[in-house]
Amino acid sequence: MPELRKDPISDRWVVVSTERGRRPTDFGGTTVAAEQAETKFCPFCDGNEAKTPAEIIAWRKAASLPNTTGWDVRVIPNKFPALIIEGDVNRTGMGIYDMMSGIGAHEVIVETPKHNQNIPDLPDEHVEKILWAYKQRITDLEKDKRFRYILVFKNYGTAAGASLAHPHSQLIATPITPRYIKLELSNSRSYFQEKERCIFCDMIRQELGSGERLVYENEYFVVFAPFASRFPFELWLMPRRHEHGFQIMPDEERLQLARCLKDVLTRLRKTLNDPPYNYVLHTAPNSVPRPGKPDYWGTIQYDFHWHIEIIPRLTKQAGFEWGSGLYINPTAPEEAAKYLREVKV
Amino acid sequence: MPELRKDPISDRWVVVSTERGRRPTDFGGTTVAAEQAETKFCPFCDGNEAKTPAEIIAWRKAASLPNTTGWDVRVIPNKFPALIIEGDVNRTGMGIYDMMSGIGAHEVIVETPKHNQNIPDLPDEHVEKILWAYKQRITDLEKDKRFRYILVFKNYGTAAGASLAHPHSQLIATPITPRYIKLELSNSRSYFQEKERCIFCDMIRQELGSGERLVYENEYFVVFAPFASRFPFELWLMPRRHEHGFQIMPDEERLQLARCLKDVLTRLRKTLNDPPYNYVLHTAPNSVPRPGKPDYWGTIQYDFHWHIEIIPRLTKQAGFEWGSGLYINPTAPEEAAKYLREVKV
Repeated sequence: MPELRKDPISDRWVVVSTERGRRPTDFGGTTVAAEQAETKFCPFCDGNEAKTPAEIIAWRKAASLPNTTGWDVRVIPNKFPALIIEGDVNRTGMGIYDMMSGIGAHEVIVETPKHNQNIPDLPDEHVEKILWAYKQRITDLEKDKRFRYILVFKNYGTAAGASLAHPHSQLIATPITPRYIKLELSNSRSYFQEKERCIFCDMIRQELGSGERLVYENEYFVVFAPFASRFPFELWLMPRRHEHGFQIMPDEERLQLARCLKDVLTRLRKTLNDPPYNYVLHTAPNSVPRPGKPDYWGTIQYDFHWHIEIIPRLTKQAGFEWGSGLYINPTAPEEAAKYLREVKV
Repeated sequence: MPELRKDPISDRWVVVSTERGRRPTDFGGTTVAAEQAETKFCPFCDGNEAKTPAEIIAWRKAASLPNTTGWDVRVIPNKFPALIIEGDVNRTGMGIYDMMSGIGAHEVIVETPKHNQNIPDLPDEHVEKILWAYKQRITDLEKDKRFRYILVFKNYGTAAGASLAHPHSQLIATPITPRYIKLELSNSRSYFQEKERCIFCDMIRQELGSGERLVYENEYFVVFAPFASRFPFELWLMPRRHEHGFQIMPDEERLQLARCLKDVLTRLRKTLNDPPYNYVLHTAPNSVPRPGKPDYWGTIQYDFHWHIEIIPRLTKQAGFEWGSGLYINPTAPEEAAKYLREVKV
């Protein structure tokens, strides 16, 4: 019997096939490694620094110069940005419609100088540098009062929307908060106001207690397949301790996060034969208290709990979902978690 | 300069590239016709009626028998249903989670006995029979008090989630209202309560007035590219007159709807080289007043306005959208509408 399950954070119902569900081998598709094996000119590769817009920041070897070789992680403006950095946010009404100028930042975090070296292949300390770059850019951009939200995400593989094969993440700063994150923010606030507890903390407690959807845990972080997973092998990564913003994570925990992220991405790669995926960082906007500075966007949302949502791109059945908001997931999250736990890393 | 646009019905912000946007020829991909040209056994084809579950209803030639040849449109249960028709809707809590048994109906509307005859190829009167089948099934299933919503949708082409190439639509009856439709229902109700006008009627008035996003109109129906289109060449089809439910549409208007749907699907086919697409019917739940019967689901939503959302599947950049609710649309709806208006039908 299939089940209808509700995610308490987004109020989303999902149809989950708990019997005769699809197993890892039922999902086909090309490996992303095959895409990265194609040889053509790549502007993100070591030595081609002059072919990209000028770098914003980079983790560099001592005495190496910007926009030359000698970096481990490099952040550059997107050459074809979805939003434009220069200008004012002009808000306009047009009859019943609202619009504003497309002001924002769109940056690329090049994760490594090597074209086919992905997070599972990198040393933990290198993955930590990628996370360091996320933090630096969020902390810098949230000072810009035009922006309401800074969205960090990764498209891995063509099927996940990547237009370049070289390992990279992206960042978009927007003058609005994206709808789904706004919904999470408001639902987690209502829950906190009613119960004086964080809904994510309650979820973590329940997941650690039952263990059936758990994939990984270390001292600071936990990864599980969410109860109402929209997609097969969907995973949520969260800090165990309540923390509203990714940016305020203590530096000493970053290496643990790197280990955690690398571990679960390795499990996905091994279980599903290097599938395309997306991950998206959900963090509270305006997370860093700035004494003496105006609070541009209202109260800091201490009741939020930052996390990373990882979505492997295995199924194409995602058309009417956009029109309806009803998801049909052919793999129960308990099954997915079991496969992912069992794999040797 | 890109624009951020807000859809007033869903409160969704979308980034729209209004300059250097992608034109029809920028989108590649296989044609669905090529998929339909492959010859293998098809259970939906004329003569194979015994290979499917027994038909529920069909538009048949006089004196032809059920589950034999002689039909124009045929409705059958889905052989691999996402939800199960037999049983009670048991609701359970599991800690912070909610679930219910996966009770529902999942049916297939086979649109024609011929394997590669699609809506643009069919006579208007045949398309009308497909719409007749939608109405019959909704009207029948909404009598079942277990169901809250009946969702009619079409996946055209593998990339849109179709697992069989033969032209067909689907219907899913659920004990919940899908989230996106629930949001539309509640937003259109708030708007009506505030302004005593329908938000969709206001939208139609504005679209007919400006004309820049208009693609088609006849006496009863209008089709336009929505102001905050999430996807290139997204289209919304609506009755011009306020009408909350598809099911209560007068029979004499159905042929006009058939003409309208056929026209715009033909325009999409010609402009975009037979692209995969999805369409989803959004209608008020429980639309047919039943004197003397209990109103199972609360007040009938007379303030809703039924419509069909058509989404061509042209881009793969739809991964982080799931994680964030922020859409980036590389083709301005004004451009899309212009291309679609100009094509000869």
